[in-house]
Amino acid sequence: MAERQGAGDHIPDVAVRRLPVYLRVLEKLYREGTAIVSSAELSRLTGFSSEQIRKDLTYFGAFGTRGVGYSAVALISQIRRILGLDQSIRAAVFGAGNLGQALVRYHAGKPQDVPMVALFDRDPEKIGRDVHGLTIAAIDDLPEVLRRAPFQMAILTVPAEAAQEVAERVVAHGIRAILNFAPVTLRLPDTVFVRNVDLSLELQSLAYYVNRRPEDAP
Amino acid sequence: MAERQGAGDHIPDVAVRRLPVYLRVLEKLYREGTAIVSSAELSRLTGFSSEQIRKDLTYFGAFGTRGVGYSAVALISQIRRILGLDQSIRAAVFGAGNLGQALVRYHAGKPQDVPMVALFDRDPEKIGRDVHGLTIAAIDDLPEVLRRAPFQMAILTVPAEAAQEVAERVVAHGIRAILNFAPVTLRLPDTVFVRNVDLSLELQSLAYYVNRRPEDAP
Repeated sequence: MAERQGAGDHIPDVAVRRLPVYLRVLEKLYREGTAIVSSAELSRLTGFSSEQIRKDLTYFGAFGTRGVGYSAVALISQIRRILGLDQSIRAAVFGAGNLGQALVRYHAGKPQDVPMVALFDRDPEKIGRDVHGLTIAAIDDLPEVLRRAPFQMAILTVPAEAAQEVAERVVAHGIRAILNFAPVTLRLPDTVFVRNVDLSLELQSLAYYVNRRPEDAP
Repeated sequence: MAERQGAGDHIPDVAVRRLPVYLRVLEKLYREGTAIVSSAELSRLTGFSSEQIRKDLTYFGAFGTRGVGYSAVALISQIRRILGLDQSIRAAVFGAGNLGQALVRYHAGKPQDVPMVALFDRDPEKIGRDVHGLTIAAIDDLPEVLRRAPFQMAILTVPAEAAQEVAERVVAHGIRAILNFAPVTLRLPDTVFVRNVDLSLELQSLAYYVNRRPEDAP
């Protein structure tokens, strides 16, 4: 996975990426009736150290009361606001192959903060077909689909050789956040944030840990 | 995505994760006839800074000649050895749902350093079916499948509520590297390396970048 560091407001991307993990744990605790949560408990449930968690939350202006902890509901709303999840943010999938369709089905099954509202492909045989409630649209119809079902994020599952072109088209239509599953490094303006998820690269880097001696493990 | 830092031999996981990106670019350059490559060219092709690249490669004991560059073939074999890709490393997928099957199909189409050699599910209706050349096996048959088709990595695409139990079973059989797509934080011995890929969390953290002003973008 090629990782770009996101430095919006000078908050490191690694910290931004931990926020949804905190959010998930906090929402679960809150649903179960927990009002106040300590960084020690967040640590136990997320696997991140208490120091890390306190540091991250301070980044975002959240302060717990020493010896008491954080208000779960306040922290939830704070994290949601920081991430922009208090607004309606929606995503579209580009590439209705195996992976694209699986992502739509996997994601559509449960309520989501970032719903997928459109699915594109360029194969005329696929266009018009339904995938879990989404009708596959032609990539050429991007402007029209955007008007009908606005989205702010693109998820690319197109083949490697098509990814750059598709990325440029979505960027030309104002998309500034891309989750890229295509095994290729996209070259886009600095104003666009790309996160890459590449199965082959994940497995190759995981291989590094297969033969570590146990005492070297993280 | 909950990220565990891998500190095998004190090399940070973020650096380990960049190695396959370098490898892919180097292999492409080499196939195209490039013998010597500069860190500036690697930077252009990977999006990482030249300084970052030189630092990473020094980590692993690779030194270019100033003003000349790195031998592509030497660097390729060095990175492959560091990652353990000079050995046979294979993976198995646990969970033959939409995502698991899509990963197998997506991955199986091309030659891979880490091939997928087994696919498991617990649904009796799925067991015995073929997915792109892999026969879905029962999770209970794990020991037998491991003997027949050894693998060193597990890819989890089971539902959240099953992930912890399945992870414990694969760990009990000696697996020490897990790529976890299930939306849950696994609690496993420190000797096991887990990398999490969670679509919902990826989208939530990407949301952070949707509303950054362009000048704040990374």
